[in-house]
Amino acid sequence: MVTQENFKECKEMIKRDLNDNKSDIRLSAGDIEEIFDELWPICRSITGDGLRDSFRILQKIIPLQLHEITSGTKVFDWEVPDEWNIKDAYIITPEGKKIADFHKNNLHVVNYSVPVDREVSYDELVNHLHYKKDLPKAIPYIASYYKERWGFCVTYETFKNLPREGKYKVKIDSSLKKGSLTYGDLVLPGELDEEILFSSYLCHPSMANNELSGPLTLAFLYNELKKIKNRKYSIRFVIAPETIGAICYLHQNKEKLQNKLKAGFVLTCCGDDGSITYKKTRQEDSLTDRVAEHVLENSNQNFDTLPFDPIGSDERQYSSPGFNFPVGVMMRTPFSKYPQYHTSLDNKSLMNFDKMVELIKILSDIVKSFDLNTTYENQITYGEPFLGKRNLFEDLNSKLSHSEIIKRRLRLLNFLDGERDLLSICEKYGYSILEVEKEINQLLEHHLIKDPRF
Amino acid sequence: MVTQENFKECKEMIKRDLNDNKSDIRLSAGDIEEIFDELWPICRSITGDGLRDSFRILQKIIPLQLHEITSGTKVFDWEVPDEWNIKDAYIITPEGKKIADFHKNNLHVVNYSVPVDREVSYDELVNHLHYKKDLPKAIPYIASYYKERWGFCVTYETFKNLPREGKYKVKIDSSLKKGSLTYGDLVLPGELDEEILFSSYLCHPSMANNELSGPLTLAFLYNELKKIKNRKYSIRFVIAPETIGAICYLHQNKEKLQNKLKAGFVLTCCGDDGSITYKKTRQEDSLTDRVAEHVLENSNQNFDTLPFDPIGSDERQYSSPGFNFPVGVMMRTPFSKYPQYHTSLDNKSLMNFDKMVELIKILSDIVKSFDLNTTYENQITYGEPFLGKRNLFEDLNSKLSHSEIIKRRLRLLNFLDGERDLLSICEKYGYSILEVEKEINQLLEHHLIKDPRF
Amino acid sequence: MVTQENFKECKEMIKRDLNDNKSDIRLSAGDIEEIFDELWPICRSITGDGLRDSFRILQKIIPLQLHEITSGTKVFDWEVPDEWNIKDAYIITPEGKKIADFHKNNLHVVNYSVPVDREVSYDELVNHLHYKKDLPKAIPYIASYYKERWGFCVTYETFKNLPREGKYKVKIDSSLKKGSLTYGDLVLPGELDEEILFSSYLCHPSMANNELSGPLTLAFLYNELKKIKNRKYSIRFVIAPETIGAICYLHQNKEKLQNKLKAGFVLTCCGDDGSITYKKTRQEDSLTDRVAEHVLENSNQNFDTLPFDPIGSDERQYSSPGFNFPVGVMMRTPFSKYPQYHTSLDNKSLMNFDKMVELIKILSDIVKSFDLNTTYENQITYGEPFLGKRNLFEDLNSKLSHSEIIKRRLRLLNFLDGERDLLSICEKYGYSILEVEKEINQLLEHHLIKDPRF
Repeated sequence: MVTQENFKECKEMIKRDLNDNKSDIRLSAGDIEEIFDELWPICRSITGDGLRDSFRILQKIIPLQLHEITSGTKVFDWEVPDEWNIKDAYIITPEGKKIADFHKNNLHVVNYSVPVDREVSYDELVNHLHYKKDLPKAIPYIASYYKERWGFCVTYETFKNLPREGKYKVKIDSSLKKGSLTYGDLVLPGELDEEILFSSYLCHPSMANNELSGPLTLAFLYNELKKIKNRKYSIRFVIAPETIGAICYLHQNKEKLQNKLKAGFVLTCCGDDGSITYKKTRQEDSLTDRVAEHVLENSNQNFDTLPFDPIGSDERQYSSPGFNFPVGVMMRTPFSKYPQYHTSLDNKSLMNFDKMVELIKILSDIVKSFDLNTTYENQITYGEPFLGKRNLFEDLNSKLSHSEIIKRRLRLLNFLDGERDLLSICEKYGYSILEVEKEINQLLEHHLIKDPRF
Repeated sequence: MVTQENFKECKEMIKRDLNDNKSDIRLSAGDIEEIFDELWPICRSITGDGLRDSFRILQKIIPLQLHEITSGTKVFDWEVPDEWNIKDAYIITPEGKKIADFHKNNLHVVNYSVPVDREVSYDELVNHLHYKKDLPKAIPYIASYYKERWGFCVTYETFKNLPREGKYKVKIDSSLKKGSLTYGDLVLPGELDEEILFSSYLCHPSMANNELSGPLTLAFLYNELKKIKNRKYSIRFVIAPETIGAICYLHQNKEKLQNKLKAGFVLTCCGDDGSITYKKTRQEDSLTDRVAEHVLENSNQNFDTLPFDPIGSDERQYSSPGFNFPVGVMMRTPFSKYPQYHTSLDNKSLMNFDKMVELIKILSDIVKSFDLNTTYENQITYGEPFLGKRNLFEDLNSKLSHSEIIKRRLRLLNFLDGERDLLSICEKYGYSILEVEKEINQLLEHHLIKDPRF
Repeated sequence: MVTQENFKECKEMIKRDLNDNKSDIRLSAGDIEEIFDELWPICRSITGDGLRDSFRILQKIIPLQLHEITSGTKVFDWEVPDEWNIKDAYIITPEGKKIADFHKNNLHVVNYSVPVDREVSYDELVNHLHYKKDLPKAIPYIASYYKERWGFCVTYETFKNLPREGKYKVKIDSSLKKGSLTYGDLVLPGELDEEILFSSYLCHPSMANNELSGPLTLAFLYNELKKIKNRKYSIRFVIAPETIGAICYLHQNKEKLQNKLKAGFVLTCCGDDGSITYKKTRQEDSLTDRVAEHVLENSNQNFDTLPFDPIGSDERQYSSPGFNFPVGVMMRTPFSKYPQYHTSLDNKSLMNFDKMVELIKILSDIVKSFDLNTTYENQITYGEPFLGKRNLFEDLNSKLSHSEIIKRRLRLLNFLDGERDLLSICEKYGYSILEVEKEINQLLEHHLIKDPRF
């Protein structure tokens, strides 16, 4: 349980952490795996102590401040549901065999099941059983947040061997009562008030790609961004239960986000072996899209882009028309494209932590590119600047054409007219924005261009 | 002759007809053919009693109100010409043979010929003869509205066998004097004042595709649209002589049309066997174009589109730059693409009344699509609406991805933001607009979206 | 030297010339070659008497008014350098052989070399020698305007045979002192104050394509344009030393140009055998680009287009962001695409004066097209104009479709709505703008359209 005391502790941890530009935490597959293993066994849901325990583990990497929203709170068109906690769940077959044991795999119980403790016939039981005929060895993941029911999830192999005669004992030791929903956030301040958002979700029980890969990517990304000096944009990190948690977050932070949010990324399904997939923002040509695609194109990674679609993860909330935030989604294999999705087969064997490290570097490059990109203003606009007197030009015209570095300078100076952003010039000439950083700094030092943000 | 009495009768007929949502007239090839046969033999022109008789026959299907514009009236850059009527016309050859007999085919006389009754030599006669060497069995259709002359049209086969010696008697019993030009119109009222126009022309003598197919399509379309309940747009129907009639109509109704006309279609050459051709409006990306192309793409019909060109039928007037109305043209084979055009070979053998029925259904679908299309306003814009509490969502997340119907709902709700129209969302997702009508009505009933037109 | 007297003479010459609509000068390969031969031997630079002498020769064809800008004048970010003049330069080898003789080829001396007159060793000499190993028979062209140095340019063959022992005598009889920079301009007045610019440069010593081809094209173009009656745009001609001269020109004429300049072309490398190359303006879709590409497409010439790039000739100055003038570049083979560029091999053997005549005709057609192009205003906008009463229409509808000339009339009248320019209509219908001149004049005479510029 997150208490007042715990809150204070949290705040101090963040303060300490933010004042310290260094980080002991390395960006390595092994370090990510260690946290993954700690988070794995916990039975999470959209509320409850499993969720809180998971946040406490993530706080080792990212000092998120936790917030609790009381059950019954109206959040836009929704209402925060009662808090769900669970101690045990299982079925005893007529032969006395214990199956669907929550302690062996927490997917066995339908998430948000109401308590039950009685004997039922086979015919009654099957109405409460879920299995996947097409994946006979998989326990499906089922939740019923907004309709009260109880149920168990088993493999199809278990299901088809159940005896039809005799009594089954079903036991779910859960509770569903007033409590609260927990989410965490953190702003890593930059020189600008304007923010870039990274958002992921925490609410599924023991699953890997479609649960732990998102918050782990976000947490380790925080540690990378923290190390960058002179960051321009402030970076907002949010982890909340999917859908209802994001809605709570938007409800509680509406004006702040409307004033500051300039770009953002939802992180989901970041952990598998597939190539990177970027799903565009609702605008489909926002700065978020342009920067993300530019960085991906200039990386050595294969990637696909998807159009925006209001079906998916929390981009549905950030992109609801009232907000219309330019928030894209960064993932590897999209949720609907791998059959293990929402089953017990979405486990560590799907994970590739080295590839997660690669993706975190891409995300870090995206932030650096945002920082570098602006509509710099050429300070000498009538005629070409006299580069020779600043030792920025050849003093002998001895070649068929200028060196690449001088071409870059002339192009940047001509087009950085206070209207075009650097990215558009890089796109025009096929430059990687991170590769022209040196030239930009040189032109800034010679006062040939000005950064309009300061 | 249309008299005052006749006018009153007209008005009452319309009133009676419009109050009655039912129609005895079926949309069938046979019923169209019956009216076609009645209209066929009449010698029409841009003025005169043949034109009035034709309107009276069409009034059995569409209760057009008729208007008369006096000869000499200035209409924009034009002037209403004298009224032309004709009783008889023929040539007697030197051998005493009657040829070019008006009563056998009214194309034999040059339309708007002045009267003549005298003897002429072969050499004089040939200056007044018209024929088509490339179609030796066709009588060409020739008119001379704005230059006084007389003439006859004959087949090339007739022409080449005429004796060169002896006297020919030529007789045209016509009159050209002050009178008036007749046109008809009707507004079928909908819930909106805004109007969709359907316009066709009546002025050619006995020709089929390039004369009767347009007014017949328009008349039977009226009967289909009349049966639709809760029509949104009002529908304006206009039949007038080509060019000068449309100019008169625009002159007499300038302000009304400028205030109300939102879309329109000229109907011409609708009767042949060819695939549908849609000629775009002058804007080439108007709502008229988008709706027409959407309906055609989602029909099972082959079709072509043509760019706008100020050469053709009455779209030349509706699309003159002062009006610039978004009026397209719906046809099958365009006038310049079939060799029988403007000859006696443009006759019933070219007609396919079943295909005319198909086209009328397409036009009716276009009107329904206009009615359905608007910039609906999502009523819950912050965060996704909670569909679950309205039983519009799965209460168990048991599938790899949502059902198509739930995807549609989410997409419509996200994009119906009061800025985009429904059509653009359907285009984005490849939906037929008429197929999402059910979902739109459901969202309207749940007050999740609002129709901004009411 | 340009004196006050000379200035007056200049002004009178222009006055005389402009009042006279005729020209004795023919546009012929032979006449261009004659002036080429006169200009060839002169040692030009960005300042000095060689430059002035060259202007005096060009004035036989185009009566440019000459202007002198004193050394040390601040021009935007630059400063006018001291004036350079040279009488002689050579090297005497240890064997007493005279090499790198300025009087044999003025490329032998590094342009803007400071004076020198002493003995040097081989080792010292080589630091001042320039040659091209990849073109062993070429004398490279080297200049050092903004860094004081001396040097010689020799063929690689000469260089590699130089004895390493003994003393070399080096002699450069040059002067570098306060003086002035010379440029020339002329406005050929049209009916409009708005101007089209043609600009070329004069500053290289004996080179052909990348020196004399530009000013020769400009001078003979002047003579062609002068002969056109009722020219609409005024035409501004500028010849100045490259870069610093163009900057001086812009500095001295800033407001005038900002008020009047509507389009322009830099002329460079116009003399070789290659196909035409048009380099777009900084806007890349300006009227300059549209007209130039239209005329080239409708010519029988092969041509390429290049995107704008702020690397090249004086378009760098005209297209600096403060000015952002829509100035393109017309050339044949671009400077960086032929290996003889900036060497003694860029000589008369590269020139094709017949092709230069062809290019001048294209440039003249571009000016005529600018004159013809405007947003004519249809005077009859409600309904189609009644062409019949003006004898501009068939009085008998006897053909399958209108003649091409009537189609053009209808299309021009419909689209010349005061918003679209004539060029866009020609582009829509694939017409050459110069081919519809007759129809435009006819519509103007009938007061069916109005030229909004008068």
